[in-house]
Amino acid sequence: MKTFAPSFIAALAAASLPTIAIADAHTEGDGPHMSLEAMADASLTQDTIAWDFVEGITTEVGPRQAGTEAETRGREWAMDWLRKKGFENVADEPFEMDTWIPGDIWTASVTSPFPQELIVQPLGNSAATPVGGLEAEVVFFRNVEELRAAPDGSLEGKIAYISHQMRPAMDGSHYGFAGPARWVGPGIAASKGAIATVIKAVGTDYHRNPHTGGTSFPEGIDPIPAAAMSVPDAENLERMFARAGDTPIRIKLELNPERIGTQISGNVVGEIVGRNPDLPPVLLACHLDSWWNAPGAFDDGAGCGIIAAAALNVRETGQPLRTIRVLFAGAEEVGLWGSRAYSAAHIDEPIAVGLESDFGADRIWRFESNFRESNPDLHARIASAIARFGVANSTIVATGGADLNIARDQGTAIIDLQQDGTRYFDLHHTPDDTLDKIDPVQLRQNVAVWTQVVGILANESRSIQTGGPIPSAPAIMEE
Amino acid sequence: MKTFAPSFIAALAAASLPTIAIADAHTEGDGPHMSLEAMADASLTQDTIAWDFVEGITTEVGPRQAGTEAETRGREWAMDWLRKKGFENVADEPFEMDTWIPGDIWTASVTSPFPQELIVQPLGNSAATPVGGLEAEVVFFRNVEELRAAPDGSLEGKIAYISHQMRPAMDGSHYGFAGPARWVGPGIAASKGAIATVIKAVGTDYHRNPHTGGTSFPEGIDPIPAAAMSVPDAENLERMFARAGDTPIRIKLELNPERIGTQISGNVVGEIVGRNPDLPPVLLACHLDSWWNAPGAFDDGAGCGIIAAAALNVRETGQPLRTIRVLFAGAEEVGLWGSRAYSAAHIDEPIAVGLESDFGADRIWRFESNFRESNPDLHARIASAIARFGVANSTIVATGGADLNIARDQGTAIIDLQQDGTRYFDLHHTPDDTLDKIDPVQLRQNVAVWTQVVGILANESRSIQTGGPIPSAPAIMEE
Repeated sequence: MKTFAPSFIAALAAASLPTIAIADAHTEGDGPHMSLEAMADASLTQDTIAWDFVEGITTEVGPRQAGTEAETRGREWAMDWLRKKGFENVADEPFEMDTWIPGDIWTASVTSPFPQELIVQPLGNSAATPVGGLEAEVVFFRNVEELRAAPDGSLEGKIAYISHQMRPAMDGSHYGFAGPARWVGPGIAASKGAIATVIKAVGTDYHRNPHTGGTSFPEGIDPIPAAAMSVPDAENLERMFARAGDTPIRIKLELNPERIGTQISGNVVGEIVGRNPDLPPVLLACHLDSWWNAPGAFDDGAGCGIIAAAALNVRETGQPLRTIRVLFAGAEEVGLWGSRAYSAAHIDEPIAVGLESDFGADRIWRFESNFRESNPDLHARIASAIARFGVANSTIVATGGADLNIARDQGTAIIDLQQDGTRYFDLHHTPDDTLDKIDPVQLRQNVAVWTQVVGILANESRSIQTGGPIPSAPAIMEE
Repeated sequence: MKTFAPSFIAALAAASLPTIAIADAHTEGDGPHMSLEAMADASLTQDTIAWDFVEGITTEVGPRQAGTEAETRGREWAMDWLRKKGFENVADEPFEMDTWIPGDIWTASVTSPFPQELIVQPLGNSAATPVGGLEAEVVFFRNVEELRAAPDGSLEGKIAYISHQMRPAMDGSHYGFAGPARWVGPGIAASKGAIATVIKAVGTDYHRNPHTGGTSFPEGIDPIPAAAMSVPDAENLERMFARAGDTPIRIKLELNPERIGTQISGNVVGEIVGRNPDLPPVLLACHLDSWWNAPGAFDDGAGCGIIAAAALNVRETGQPLRTIRVLFAGAEEVGLWGSRAYSAAHIDEPIAVGLESDFGADRIWRFESNFRESNPDLHARIASAIARFGVANSTIVATGGADLNIARDQGTAIIDLQQDGTRYFDLHHTPDDTLDKIDPVQLRQNVAVWTQVVGILANESRSIQTGGPIPSAPAIMEE
């Protein structure tokens, strides 16, 4: 995997590029504003806001699992940052959530016939093993479909091992292909009598930092211990199966996660208030939380940095017509609690359009909306405006990211600015999701594209979804 | 870092390449033999022996720290493999060694002002912390030279953090540049009063698998706890220093390594016996042990596979004049115990020439000997013979690898076949040193070059060092 020495690259960039444009725009008061196009162009080479956010939260907070004190620190840090950057109406919107924590014992080893340790991480919602661990024969399933085909009761007293055939994919579609091994594999294995499940981590890298993530168990099925091993460990285990012949392979596994009941998580919001605050706002979403093991640079510190930078950049071109609201959602990783809580709390406050950044920090390559047919003029205008950044138009209908429940629940306009996800599943939900993985050049391309798009949307006086006129107040659901 | 899906690549290669040459050579009995050149060429595209060794030992044994039962299993596995491949005089040559083991608690965290965990591994010979850990202010040294300049007693009660500026280098020379942070840093810190040392891992990758390795403490200085943190952790800590201003940064560290006294390690040897076994043999070295955390594919399973494959390939071209002896050394990582033991045991049995493979599995790019002036004809013949594999001649005087103490102690001929080490310190002494990192194409280039070189050496009737005639028996020290 390509890596970067960001401080070095950032220093080079700072030294070699003209820095007049943004500096001027950010310091001027009531004078003439920079055009949106010039602002987007300048951010492509000069934006420092997105980097400042993601460097700050990964350095000063680090991993921040939902429902823990680390997430609370993350919210406080983010609110402080938003206020310092000049966002208005910055607030914490707390909600309750049932909370699982990983514990601190995650050990696994092959005990026979080829004894050696395996590096594992527990999956979210995994049960604990007995103290001291459990040991059993392992049954190999090449993918979750093979597991589904196993007879009921056939895993009684055994450990299921579930593999998959995930490959890097620019559009992330192999997550849907391989993800079920994690999402439902342990539950299916439990329903067939397995006492534990180990999966090949749902990831595309060859580093021994297993990808965690949530799993779930069907109604009426007691959770069993469930862990992910790194891809190198999984391939080694599969070679053992190839070499062991009829000799059973036995694994010992010890995990001590626990459920700690109801805890407080929360969403952080902030606004660039528009000239007409009664118009439905433009909602920009990301999530603040990460898994306990991941500093959350790609997932999703970068996303929060990108959307905040875009909002601030648009403000620098003059106060926008509509309010731009950023939603730094809590508790996304552990089950979209923040997205649901935000929608429940704000369902009666229509938004104009929802956009989310939550797929790393590599370049945006494709633009999708859900109003290409209902408002073709606006769709075409946006597509045309961002073509210069290498973003292609698309007929795919945008459905929005995890934290846009409110947009889906309100049935409103949605835009997806698709990022290159080739590297995303090298890092997703692992300790390797660190700042150094972010390419500052690609991060700034995200900011440039978002600045351009958000600037158009926030100054659009007509309905984004339909292109029709809208009363300025009160806001109506059709918008 | 580039990764490989070896089974897939191997399958492709097997499917697409002609397989006649080696198969014929390996099955024929007393018939005419394949030429050395044809054998080397064939191994470039078809060798499976080196891969078989490194796949086998990483899958069936895994990590194998010297002095532990895992290393014993490694020796047994290797002897079994050598015998099955037809090596003669396969033997275990045990020796005693003072043994340090890492324990199983290696935790560190920044406690103030930016609380978060750090991923660490203990350094070999580290002391344990008190149970429950120790906590202290950290003092930042950009490299070991800055640490050397710190006043005596200035680290009293503190933790030293030692950074470095290592970059990937094809010839591995940045190991010498950055390595002292690990080799001597903790000892210097201890001598100035530090209660513990954490270093930026001596490595070039951005994965959170810290590179371990040995450290040592000066005579009269009690060992202190010493650990390496991954490069991403180290860069994060350095960003904290940049952000903390005058606020001290405090770290909590807990390690429980221990010394377990004298244990048994051993060297494994095997031979392809020559037509004149009284002639000094050609000695090919590698090492069998790895650190506890590393499966030892690059370091040095590959090396053992390469030298064994070369010896077997040369035999397939007809029984060589000289005996070819392979030395799979034990206890290299923890202080070259095997190399010293071998030299002590065999100092009176002259070898003709020593060669070692212990720098990964990427391609050989440069040839060095220490007899270019004393035996220019042979040096030139070898250089000419391997030019077709992309190996350049060099005026650098070969000094041999860690396990060639005997060659240095005897003052005999040495050849270094330098491998491309650009990726080596991404993997060195980490859990990521797994089979998938080996590129089968480059591994086979190593086998081809070694086959060619060993074939020339093992059939050389004159002194390798001088080019002069030698009595055939008894062997003499001048050889």
